[in-house]
Amino acid sequence: MRTGVWLIGAHGNVATTAIVGARALAAGETETTGLVTARDPYARLDLPPVEEFVFGGHDISETSVLSTARSLAESATVPLNVVQAVSDDLERVEERITAGTTVNCGRAVEELASETMSGTSFSNAVDRIREDYRTFASEQNVDRLVVVNVSSTEPRLSSPERYDTLNAFERAIEEDDRELPASSLYAYAALVDDHPYINFTPSTGAALGGLKELAERTNVPHMGRDGKTGETLLKSALAPMFAQRNLQVLSWEGHNILGNADGQVLEDDANKAGKLASKGGVLDGILEGEFHNRVRIDYTPPLGDWKTAWDDIRFRGFLGTQMKMQFTWEGSDSVLAAPLVLDLVRLIAHADEHGEGGLQPQLASFFKSPLGVDEHDLSRQFDMLDSYVDRHEGET
Amino acid sequence: MRTGVWLIGAHGNVATTAIVGARALAAGETETTGLVTARDPYARLDLPPVEEFVFGGHDISETSVLSTARSLAESATVPLNVVQAVSDDLERVEERITAGTTVNCGRAVEELASETMSGTSFSNAVDRIREDYRTFASEQNVDRLVVVNVSSTEPRLSSPERYDTLNAFERAIEEDDRELPASSLYAYAALVDDHPYINFTPSTGAALGGLKELAERTNVPHMGRDGKTGETLLKSALAPMFAQRNLQVLSWEGHNILGNADGQVLEDDANKAGKLASKGGVLDGILEGEFHNRVRIDYTPPLGDWKTAWDDIRFRGFLGTQMKMQFTWEGSDSVLAAPLVLDLVRLIAHADEHGEGGLQPQLASFFKSPLGVDEHDLSRQFDMLDSYVDRHEGET
Amino acid sequence: MRTGVWLIGAHGNVATTAIVGARALAAGETETTGLVTARDPYARLDLPPVEEFVFGGHDISETSVLSTARSLAESATVPLNVVQAVSDDLERVEERITAGTTVNCGRAVEELASETMSGTSFSNAVDRIREDYRTFASEQNVDRLVVVNVSSTEPRLSSPERYDTLNAFERAIEEDDRELPASSLYAYAALVDDHPYINFTPSTGAALGGLKELAERTNVPHMGRDGKTGETLLKSALAPMFAQRNLQVLSWEGHNILGNADGQVLEDDANKAGKLASKGGVLDGILEGEFHNRVRIDYTPPLGDWKTAWDDIRFRGFLGTQMKMQFTWEGSDSVLAAPLVLDLVRLIAHADEHGEGGLQPQLASFFKSPLGVDEHDLSRQFDMLDSYVDRHEGET
Amino acid sequence: MRTGVWLIGAHGNVATTAIVGARALAAGETETTGLVTARDPYARLDLPPVEEFVFGGHDISETSVLSTARSLAESATVPLNVVQAVSDDLERVEERITAGTTVNCGRAVEELASETMSGTSFSNAVDRIREDYRTFASEQNVDRLVVVNVSSTEPRLSSPERYDTLNAFERAIEEDDRELPASSLYAYAALVDDHPYINFTPSTGAALGGLKELAERTNVPHMGRDGKTGETLLKSALAPMFAQRNLQVLSWEGHNILGNADGQVLEDDANKAGKLASKGGVLDGILEGEFHNRVRIDYTPPLGDWKTAWDDIRFRGFLGTQMKMQFTWEGSDSVLAAPLVLDLVRLIAHADEHGEGGLQPQLASFFKSPLGVDEHDLSRQFDMLDSYVDRHEGET
Repeated sequence: MRTGVWLIGAHGNVATTAIVGARALAAGETETTGLVTARDPYARLDLPPVEEFVFGGHDISETSVLSTARSLAESATVPLNVVQAVSDDLERVEERITAGTTVNCGRAVEELASETMSGTSFSNAVDRIREDYRTFASEQNVDRLVVVNVSSTEPRLSSPERYDTLNAFERAIEEDDRELPASSLYAYAALVDDHPYINFTPSTGAALGGLKELAERTNVPHMGRDGKTGETLLKSALAPMFAQRNLQVLSWEGHNILGNADGQVLEDDANKAGKLASKGGVLDGILEGEFHNRVRIDYTPPLGDWKTAWDDIRFRGFLGTQMKMQFTWEGSDSVLAAPLVLDLVRLIAHADEHGEGGLQPQLASFFKSPLGVDEHDLSRQFDMLDSYVDRHEGET
Repeated sequence: MRTGVWLIGAHGNVATTAIVGARALAAGETETTGLVTARDPYARLDLPPVEEFVFGGHDISETSVLSTARSLAESATVPLNVVQAVSDDLERVEERITAGTTVNCGRAVEELASETMSGTSFSNAVDRIREDYRTFASEQNVDRLVVVNVSSTEPRLSSPERYDTLNAFERAIEEDDRELPASSLYAYAALVDDHPYINFTPSTGAALGGLKELAERTNVPHMGRDGKTGETLLKSALAPMFAQRNLQVLSWEGHNILGNADGQVLEDDANKAGKLASKGGVLDGILEGEFHNRVRIDYTPPLGDWKTAWDDIRFRGFLGTQMKMQFTWEGSDSVLAAPLVLDLVRLIAHADEHGEGGLQPQLASFFKSPLGVDEHDLSRQFDMLDSYVDRHEGET
Repeated sequence: MRTGVWLIGAHGNVATTAIVGARALAAGETETTGLVTARDPYARLDLPPVEEFVFGGHDISETSVLSTARSLAESATVPLNVVQAVSDDLERVEERITAGTTVNCGRAVEELASETMSGTSFSNAVDRIREDYRTFASEQNVDRLVVVNVSSTEPRLSSPERYDTLNAFERAIEEDDRELPASSLYAYAALVDDHPYINFTPSTGAALGGLKELAERTNVPHMGRDGKTGETLLKSALAPMFAQRNLQVLSWEGHNILGNADGQVLEDDANKAGKLASKGGVLDGILEGEFHNRVRIDYTPPLGDWKTAWDDIRFRGFLGTQMKMQFTWEGSDSVLAAPLVLDLVRLIAHADEHGEGGLQPQLASFFKSPLGVDEHDLSRQFDMLDSYVDRHEGET
Repeated sequence: MRTGVWLIGAHGNVATTAIVGARALAAGETETTGLVTARDPYARLDLPPVEEFVFGGHDISETSVLSTARSLAESATVPLNVVQAVSDDLERVEERITAGTTVNCGRAVEELASETMSGTSFSNAVDRIREDYRTFASEQNVDRLVVVNVSSTEPRLSSPERYDTLNAFERAIEEDDRELPASSLYAYAALVDDHPYINFTPSTGAALGGLKELAERTNVPHMGRDGKTGETLLKSALAPMFAQRNLQVLSWEGHNILGNADGQVLEDDANKAGKLASKGGVLDGILEGEFHNRVRIDYTPPLGDWKTAWDDIRFRGFLGTQMKMQFTWEGSDSVLAAPLVLDLVRLIAHADEHGEGGLQPQLASFFKSPLGVDEHDLSRQFDMLDSYVDRHEGET
């Protein structure tokens, strides 16, 4: 079984770190720290090995995986010696990366683009994407192709309900409906040709009624959205404690500063809106009652690929006494995200192998806004994954 | 059913806040925020109402519950108007508080003591404690008496295994063995006369083989030790996240500063040792592998009854990249602890009512060092309590 | 010598705390902590005693000083027993507070107003304000009246240069120029009748060419603007260290959360702009080179009158190595501001007594944007005040 | 004019970073960020150029400057490419480094030692050190040799007053007085032969009456002790603000964690005592009144050469209201210290050139415990350096 991994946004930090990491594992240059599926009980599932993944992808920028890897090494995100050890591999991956489309990615993303499919009709764009997937799969001789969106955040879609049926969605493509987000075209192209699809970003992707309908019909597994890597991960681990102890959260103020291209795109208010909606919802899903809930994201160039989150939480305890907690979290988003991308590919390939199409709620712990899942408590989400393992353990 | 609550350390901040809170609930002067048993599913159990608790207790200091309550109000821990509203109640409780013993509490505690049972033999001390319990229970006409240790931390016992059998323990009493800690005398006096016992402190209490044997024999429920109120509560909520995501914790450095009498007692290195052992173990029970684990507790008078914990956590992620998290937690220990004391009384009374003697693992989430329980993950501990509810729900 | 203090925004937190503090000092109920002029060398100047200040003022809201004082006591800002001890005094002050005007205060402020001079012409408004000052001064029989603006922040004035001459300013009044800010009307009314004027807020006040001309002509001392109480105070103490050690600041990101009426007014972007301009400038005045400088202010109701600032500073040291500092500052703005208001009244009265009109650079340390002063280093600013003392010490 | 720099502890992080930096400046591979003397007004003095410094030194460990430099590069302290660019230079410096002595350095330091002068008499040790200085100076043909102590902290000397006269000190050498600290032998050897001496560590060095007498007699400039690089630097910048504003500090609790060899040495309580005494004194020198002042230093290996300080400051403002500030400082001690070492060599060489022997109070801003100076306010200390410049500017 040979697993292809098609990364939308392949030149980005997350994609690059995932590729570097997979190749470093193959070369014995690193360990599996940070890979959820490397630990028990998940390690007991019969999952495709990361070391055998074959990578390809789309990107709109003219940089390269190797060049991104080098600048990550400069900002102390990824070790330089590891990048050097896998640089030949990165150059080989580069040959399988082709230009993507920027339709409706928002002005901030368009400014980063150098080569795109712009100017073409939507049905042409979809055809070309499908062709890109197909060519890669056949040339690389993969048994299964998993498509993963790790590109920059798009502006938020105003009326997603307009695409609630597959019919409406396909008509929108034909009619060149300028509202249709690029991420959904990539998702459509995947699902229509039986490629499992993961949306690691806050963009729309397959989170439209029409695309869910398509995935049900083709019985293709898909899941999203917005990888839960840093501040929101902490929220989903911490907030349940307040609920469990019946402590009433009065305000939860989060301030994120980051310095990479993602941060630059998020400076644009339209793109930020999508991200904030996704981050804000986790607390509402865990805590009861009204509270002041605000998330700020600011672009601060000296941080490079690193992100610092500062959260201030005020809560009321017994006898109405007000108390507080504050935390800072300083992590590299790419390093936190990359292993999850590899985990998700492994787990969705497993679901596909076992004929489990449609949304994959057992993957909820990986996402800020897990599609079709209301549970945001991290431990409960891991319980869902454990149950999946219980169901499948011992199978081959 | 009338439930008596006997507080060892009744003049202390935790006891006082629990009494104030219970009476304020009875008077409709406060809400149930912070009380775990006030929320579902626990609220569905048939638990004795906090409003009907009858309080009494031992203390070694000459202050009073009302006077402690007033100084808590001054340090903005407990609202002044609530203290005023229940001050008559507090004076009534005061009449049921009698002098305790300081045998082997450590020099720091002894210095706080004004009236004690010192000079008496251990068997006399035990007899007197049993008599105190009995008199209170009969005078107040309670159907059940729950004994709770909320007194200051004792020095750590060097060879607890010497008291591994009831026989050895009782012989030690007879022989006036000067190693026997005061907290264990109180625990013995409770268990031998069928009073459920809770040890909310890091002191030894019933955590001796001989006393566990006694509780099994008399079929009396008991549990401990060291209420999980602040920094350690956070550890048990946060550490599982690192394990779940396969992130390798390299160091977890905790620094606590506090300004109340507890802090003063902990200035004494002997007393601090017991506390630190209890705080340190939680992480070892959740995280795998070796890591640097240190807890500091310093007495800083301007903080009054408030405690500030600062924790610095370094961890390794994918590709060996080192990241970090820091938090500060600023809470009133008394306000955090008091509702848990009330919860524990309710829950252990329930177990006693249902004939469930011995250790009570379903109460693990309330303790830093839950006796007989290896699970330190807060969510898993709450799962244990949920299972208890499932077993008992619907009973009367 | 009897000194009158006229507070614009007399029902606000800062004014109320100043009045409570002055009366508590008179009653021997508090100490001089926080009063700069209470310590040497300033205490050696012949300054009017705070205990003898006579207060009056304008306000647009229907609340009262006593009611504001009580809610400050509830949020643990001001001690309740002190408020009780001076409540008769507060009621007497209340009789000398009259309705102010809201012309051009911005929508946010107008919504807070209950009684105002709206609907009147500007020259009528000015006449009435002058009359209010005059009546107070004569009824209270004060020898000198100092006018202090401590009201909520107005929106920023777009073209202040339009009022660069006294002529242009007075014509604007006559022509009912709707751009003219209310704060400048109050300032004009003070300066034209020889009342020293202090602008403790970021609003325009006397910071117009025309009003400076007026003050020079009448030889009345005035100074502003924006009291330096919290985060900015820290910046002016800390930033010089980076400059002195030749450490290159790369970014200084400040995030303020606060929960009082000021915070509510600042939720309005127009009003916030004035505040942010004032806060941002301090660093630019101390640090060389380009750096990322951002200040956020968010309204977070549970904080009440308290403000938490979180600052993240990245800097480059020797060999280009990047390092960082973060701080949180948790203070009550009112408690920090109130003694400075009293200090400023004392010091400007002193200048007036000595015939020193116009801007007062020796007061720079009190302000975020000291008018006419480029020095933002706190120590250098105190040097200026020390020189003033050297010049005047020994005089009577 | 050729300036020799003799580093005691030449294989350590601070020495290595200083050498790397100086050579990198000579090679045009880095900039002068962090060098105080590179900015005005100090740059206007006629100081010896860092680029022309000739390095030599003592060390007790068998590692090398190049090897230390490489491990600093691995812990992201010093850029790897810079280390590579100057590696030939580092090897040349290595040839001029010779074995030092560990007499009375404390057990922790002795365990780090591989080659030492142990077993020899004190007068032999002194002779050999003098010979080492002399040989280096003549072989390298330097016009002036500045000796700098940058070695690990020694245990604190119990009775320094025993060496209050030169006579007593020299007799102690002759009598092999086992209390005499190694750092003082190095200092003596420098001063007796007219080499300016700087003690950048908390060890005793020239801080003995007898050595001050010697420096006065030979008219050699010397200064110390304990370079002010991180947390204490911040204290000396921040604490004056509390004093200036008449805010009463109630407690200042500092907790430092660090992971380098210095940290390891400080794990030993004897060595830590010297460091803590030096750190604690700064606040007492700036703030009036009683307050709780505690400094903790803990060894936390994952931090490598980085140090994190967490400080918690409680203070009382107007009306007795208690407020607080907390900060974290995350810096590389070596990177912060190294440029100061170079600055000090330049400035003490300047003093020597101008015949200014004895203690050098104008250098106070560089030290935690500036010898002979009571002023700890950073700005006032810089004023002292500015006055020195005023006195010397324009000279050649």
